[in-house]
Amino acid sequence: MIETYVVQGREMDVFSAAFERTLPVMLTGPTGCGKTTFVQEMADRLGRPCVTVSCHDDLTTADLVGRFLVFGGDVEWHDGPLTGAMRDGAICYLDEVVEARRDTLALLHSVTDQRRTLFVDRRRETVEAAEGFMLVASYNPRGRGAFKELRPSLRQRFVTIPMEYLPPERETELLVARTTVGPASAERLVRLATALRSEAVEAVVDPPSTRSLVLAAELLVAGVDERDAIETAILSPLASDRGVEDALRDLVRAALPDDAVPVSNTG
Amino acid sequence: MIETYVVQGREMDVFSAAFERTLPVMLTGPTGCGKTTFVQEMADRLGRPCVTVSCHDDLTTADLVGRFLVFGGDVEWHDGPLTGAMRDGAICYLDEVVEARRDTLALLHSVTDQRRTLFVDRRRETVEAAEGFMLVASYNPRGRGAFKELRPSLRQRFVTIPMEYLPPERETELLVARTTVGPASAERLVRLATALRSEAVEAVVDPPSTRSLVLAAELLVAGVDERDAIETAILSPLASDRGVEDALRDLVRAALPDDAVPVSNTG
Amino acid sequence: MIETYVVQGREMDVFSAAFERTLPVMLTGPTGCGKTTFVQEMADRLGRPCVTVSCHDDLTTADLVGRFLVFGGDVEWHDGPLTGAMRDGAICYLDEVVEARRDTLALLHSVTDQRRTLFVDRRRETVEAAEGFMLVASYNPRGRGAFKELRPSLRQRFVTIPMEYLPPERETELLVARTTVGPASAERLVRLATALRSEAVEAVVDPPSTRSLVLAAELLVAGVDERDAIETAILSPLASDRGVEDALRDLVRAALPDDAVPVSNTG
Amino acid sequence: MIETYVVQGREMDVFSAAFERTLPVMLTGPTGCGKTTFVQEMADRLGRPCVTVSCHDDLTTADLVGRFLVFGGDVEWHDGPLTGAMRDGAICYLDEVVEARRDTLALLHSVTDQRRTLFVDRRRETVEAAEGFMLVASYNPRGRGAFKELRPSLRQRFVTIPMEYLPPERETELLVARTTVGPASAERLVRLATALRSEAVEAVVDPPSTRSLVLAAELLVAGVDERDAIETAILSPLASDRGVEDALRDLVRAALPDDAVPVSNTG
Amino acid sequence: MIETYVVQGREMDVFSAAFERTLPVMLTGPTGCGKTTFVQEMADRLGRPCVTVSCHDDLTTADLVGRFLVFGGDVEWHDGPLTGAMRDGAICYLDEVVEARRDTLALLHSVTDQRRTLFVDRRRETVEAAEGFMLVASYNPRGRGAFKELRPSLRQRFVTIPMEYLPPERETELLVARTTVGPASAERLVRLATALRSEAVEAVVDPPSTRSLVLAAELLVAGVDERDAIETAILSPLASDRGVEDALRDLVRAALPDDAVPVSNTG
Amino acid sequence: MIETYVVQGREMDVFSAAFERTLPVMLTGPTGCGKTTFVQEMADRLGRPCVTVSCHDDLTTADLVGRFLVFGGDVEWHDGPLTGAMRDGAICYLDEVVEARRDTLALLHSVTDQRRTLFVDRRRETVEAAEGFMLVASYNPRGRGAFKELRPSLRQRFVTIPMEYLPPERETELLVARTTVGPASAERLVRLATALRSEAVEAVVDPPSTRSLVLAAELLVAGVDERDAIETAILSPLASDRGVEDALRDLVRAALPDDAVPVSNTG
Repeated sequence: MIETYVVQGREMDVFSAAFERTLPVMLTGPTGCGKTTFVQEMADRLGRPCVTVSCHDDLTTADLVGRFLVFGGDVEWHDGPLTGAMRDGAICYLDEVVEARRDTLALLHSVTDQRRTLFVDRRRETVEAAEGFMLVASYNPRGRGAFKELRPSLRQRFVTIPMEYLPPERETELLVARTTVGPASAERLVRLATALRSEAVEAVVDPPSTRSLVLAAELLVAGVDERDAIETAILSPLASDRGVEDALRDLVRAALPDDAVPVSNTG
Repeated sequence: MIETYVVQGREMDVFSAAFERTLPVMLTGPTGCGKTTFVQEMADRLGRPCVTVSCHDDLTTADLVGRFLVFGGDVEWHDGPLTGAMRDGAICYLDEVVEARRDTLALLHSVTDQRRTLFVDRRRETVEAAEGFMLVASYNPRGRGAFKELRPSLRQRFVTIPMEYLPPERETELLVARTTVGPASAERLVRLATALRSEAVEAVVDPPSTRSLVLAAELLVAGVDERDAIETAILSPLASDRGVEDALRDLVRAALPDDAVPVSNTG
Repeated sequence: MIETYVVQGREMDVFSAAFERTLPVMLTGPTGCGKTTFVQEMADRLGRPCVTVSCHDDLTTADLVGRFLVFGGDVEWHDGPLTGAMRDGAICYLDEVVEARRDTLALLHSVTDQRRTLFVDRRRETVEAAEGFMLVASYNPRGRGAFKELRPSLRQRFVTIPMEYLPPERETELLVARTTVGPASAERLVRLATALRSEAVEAVVDPPSTRSLVLAAELLVAGVDERDAIETAILSPLASDRGVEDALRDLVRAALPDDAVPVSNTG
Repeated sequence: MIETYVVQGREMDVFSAAFERTLPVMLTGPTGCGKTTFVQEMADRLGRPCVTVSCHDDLTTADLVGRFLVFGGDVEWHDGPLTGAMRDGAICYLDEVVEARRDTLALLHSVTDQRRTLFVDRRRETVEAAEGFMLVASYNPRGRGAFKELRPSLRQRFVTIPMEYLPPERETELLVARTTVGPASAERLVRLATALRSEAVEAVVDPPSTRSLVLAAELLVAGVDERDAIETAILSPLASDRGVEDALRDLVRAALPDDAVPVSNTG
Repeated sequence: MIETYVVQGREMDVFSAAFERTLPVMLTGPTGCGKTTFVQEMADRLGRPCVTVSCHDDLTTADLVGRFLVFGGDVEWHDGPLTGAMRDGAICYLDEVVEARRDTLALLHSVTDQRRTLFVDRRRETVEAAEGFMLVASYNPRGRGAFKELRPSLRQRFVTIPMEYLPPERETELLVARTTVGPASAERLVRLATALRSEAVEAVVDPPSTRSLVLAAELLVAGVDERDAIETAILSPLASDRGVEDALRDLVRAALPDDAVPVSNTG
Repeated sequence: MIETYVVQGREMDVFSAAFERTLPVMLTGPTGCGKTTFVQEMADRLGRPCVTVSCHDDLTTADLVGRFLVFGGDVEWHDGPLTGAMRDGAICYLDEVVEARRDTLALLHSVTDQRRTLFVDRRRETVEAAEGFMLVASYNPRGRGAFKELRPSLRQRFVTIPMEYLPPERETELLVARTTVGPASAERLVRLATALRSEAVEAVVDPPSTRSLVLAAELLVAGVDERDAIETAILSPLASDRGVEDALRDLVRAALPDDAVPVSNTG
């Protein structure tokens, strides 16, 4: 599977400027619109290693900063991913940062301002960020069921780059490049996704991610027919209510009127 | 007791395609419709070992990934079931994944995308999935009292195969094969189950699972009379309200009008 | 105090059939109707030892499965009651199972299906149930204030035997046999209990258990007069509201109009 | 300070009968009506030692049963108060038992039925109650703000003795005997308490306990004037709302119209 | 800074009487009215050391009673402040006792009745209070946002002394004595405080404490002008709503009409 | 990046007076108005080191006071930042103190009154503040979503200095000094911020901090065009609702009518 990042707008310029001026960056946008891939692409372009942390309710300070571990009676300190990235001058990417616990978020304060330091309480050591270190975080402020919010005192410490789904032609190219699916099939999947991402549908179900389209394309490549691929990779993950499922299938028929016609799936 | 998986539709094709393209699979459907048996069947067909984890509220990251255990002063690392499955190229099946804690779900992100890796924080080791590893999960999105939901960013990482109860003839065959109950008795149990799985009944009680029918058939084989077998294996687990119990008994009489007639229970 | 189980209906046949076919059994019914005594009786008849666990909010997995304990630097594994029963082929009785924590309930899945195994995570050992092992659980689905429910995926794994209070003559016999109270006094206690177990009263207070009657009979045997015995062993545990207490006393007078007449208390 | 228990009714007979038949006893009644003193009195009369445990939200199983403690590398088991009482044949008194955690209450099941045993999980030892052991518990089912309730399956295991405040003459005697206050002063304090314990007042503030009267009498003996003694020992602990305080003072003036007249405070 | 306690009424007589009769004392009253200073004053007068504990949500039993601490493999017991005070015959002052956890409050039962003992579970030792030991507690039953309450069974164990702010002349003297501020300035601060402590204002903001006045006087002594001293030491800690702040400033202008006139700040 | 503190009013005089009289100081005001920079500036001017602690939900007492850490079997005490600052006579700055746990706040009582002591329970040591020690805390009482409040008994222990955003000319100077952005560009950013900080806008989104303006200026210096800089550094962190975003863009057009005109970004 090849990860080819497809440019959306001026996000690379802003990211590079933030890197140059050592400013932290926040990526916002819908699930699966390419935030993670973008960070990896930028890490490659800037020649920095990238460490990713999926944040969640129980992510503790120690999970980011490090902890003492006991081995045969000896105590050894193990840097966490944030501390490690600061020492190595790497990009530390906190995915869905809004999920992290408050204490974990609090320790980002000194990392995200001009100090660029992290106080490791357990070692009484102040770690200074090496050149090249950059903190990147992401979250989806518009997700259905997004009850958590970041505090303004943290949010305003980041340059915030809003991201959206790729425009249709670009998303089609991406599907072909990543999965070797045929362009016609890819175009049909994107046409369907565009219909499902309209505001009217968004009120009822979460929109399908680019990742869902990749899954569908992969199934096509493996010989699954289009109807099953769309059903299992795109529609079923969205809905669990029979009425909604029926409505989605109507949408598919409207978006892909010729969907009974067999199409070639691989280039 | 013999576990014979009975095919529902094209679920085996989609599962095999996902396996071929190293995509994770989510099974959805009502309690006891055969999700677990299906995974075991596919593991056998694909020649992979299968590790099952019943998820729950308190399933911690360490329960999946592993932990250090102390023995007589020495510290030894023990892989958890997920880590073990990744190293061994096994199928790791997370039953009722929606019950797991958020942090446990978060660590599935890198396992379910093209990385197919798991970062074992406590060892600072990145485990790469061996060939043959596949993550399968299941949940019941329509259960009464299903308040929890998976986040879209996780749900859209899986190819989702919706499953339903077996069609009546197949379910009858399965009862006979598994319990040696007589076909006539099996057919009566399935006829009753079909009546109890109608949408009208579903609004009041959870539908009976295939497993309930197996229990009833086992009791018949052991000589319990049909009325007691139906009462204790099918009706009593469903309801705890006297009015509902009476209504269910009416349903039994309607579905099995001749239920006073003794029938031979074993083939 | 002698425990003599008094048969209610066909519960022994169903229980024996379940034992023969290695199926787990769930007992439901009101508090104190004899569920625990029934399990002990069946264990005796089937010649199996019986281990009882009173479940509660904080019953952890380790409480059932076992744990490592440290003694003078050494670590020793101690089987919990469930693991022990599986190894010994005993009956493991989980009283009020609905109270247990979700994670504790989750581990019952593999124990209650055809696998009859328990994965002991901390030892990475899969314990297989020895012949004779049987899991029995109980709960009261109709208790006032019964807010918790078992999930259908667990409930449908059990053959469910509903139990009720003994019919009056049998309950009278039981009181005499257990406490040596005189039959006339026993009959009066049971007559009172029957009045208090009517549906109208049930809406206001929990019905008195057979155990309450035993307590009252014991007090009679020790020379306490009937009025005090009824008051302290039957009425006072039921109500803590003055209005309700007065109503209960009216019920006593209606059920036992001659209650001022001294009666001989011991046979 | 001398503790002289003053008999209320037939509570001693019922308690003795329960002791004779090895039945557990529950005492109910308002705060400070003499439950604790009654248990101590009965322990003396029955010649058994008495161990008191004040229950609360965080009372753990280990707090009652015992725990392993580490001393200089060695592990020693320490019996908790319940285990100790069972071994020694003592009375174990659980004050305000309703406050204890559910798991702590669950372990009382086997202690309170005919088994009279306690399974000490951590030692895998079943402790059998020595002769003379008796479990006594208390709670106040009518306290304002009493939201917690005991489950019927536990409540119906106890012979329940309801207790009330002493009748006025007896309470007066008790004050004199315990504090050496003069009988006239004691009578005035009891007269006031009686007025404050009426149902109308009870709806607004908790009634004053006998203990409050003892405190007031002690202050009188130490030379504090009656107005201050009543204010600080009886009224101030009851109310923290100015309007209620004023209403209480009116009640004092009505109950003790001559309260400006100096009275001799000590006999 | 000199702490000079200024007498309010007969609180010293009642406190001394309680000390003489070994009764525990509860102080109630608004924040900063002098409860802590009063306890310290009485400790000096009675010639007893005084140990203060600021209670809070997480104050554990061990925080009061003591705990085992490990040093280089050895285990040493460390008395907590309550245990220490009982052994030394000191006054133990629990400030804002209502904040403490329920289990912490439960252990006060045996300390506050005629037993005057504390059972140290971890050592299985019953500590008896030495002569001179006295338990004093405080809380503010009328604070805005005071949702917690003490249980009556605890509250009625204490002689309760309600306290209020000092009368104006006394509070003025106290400011002069503690801070060396000039009497005219002190009188102006007290005049303002009196206006802010009216019932009408109390409904909107917490009243200013004597401590706030001391802070303001200290700033005056350090040369800060009166307007800034009042603003930063008295008004700003009270309100965080612009409308309320403006209303408070109007109150200041009404209470101190000549507040633009410079006044000499030090005596 | 140069931190130049810009004076707002008499805050330096009040802070210095509080330092002279050893009084603790509380800073209140909106996010990013310069509270942290002010403390650092004052620490420099007073010649004291400054230790900053970002408070949060899980900040424990040990995080402030210190803890025992085990190294190779030895136990070593490590002072926390508060204890260290008291010993060294440093300024200890608790940022967003309202977020800290109640127990953490309770230990500030003895530090903030005339005692200036801290009882280190685990060492049974009373640490006295060295000369020069000062406790400074901050919080934002008007933040949207500010549900937590400090208790009056704590709040009234601090001299409270309310802070606001800098007046426009000063904020412009600060941007130029810190980022080397051109004065014309800086003036435009401040003009926009002033519009966004009006009360009408404040009801909908949090106002932009000075820090946001610095981020925007940094991006300008790095060559990002003004529209993108404003979008990513100022607007995007404020809103996540499309309607609000559009309204904010209207505000930008109104505040900066010539915003399409390229401006020189660096001086």
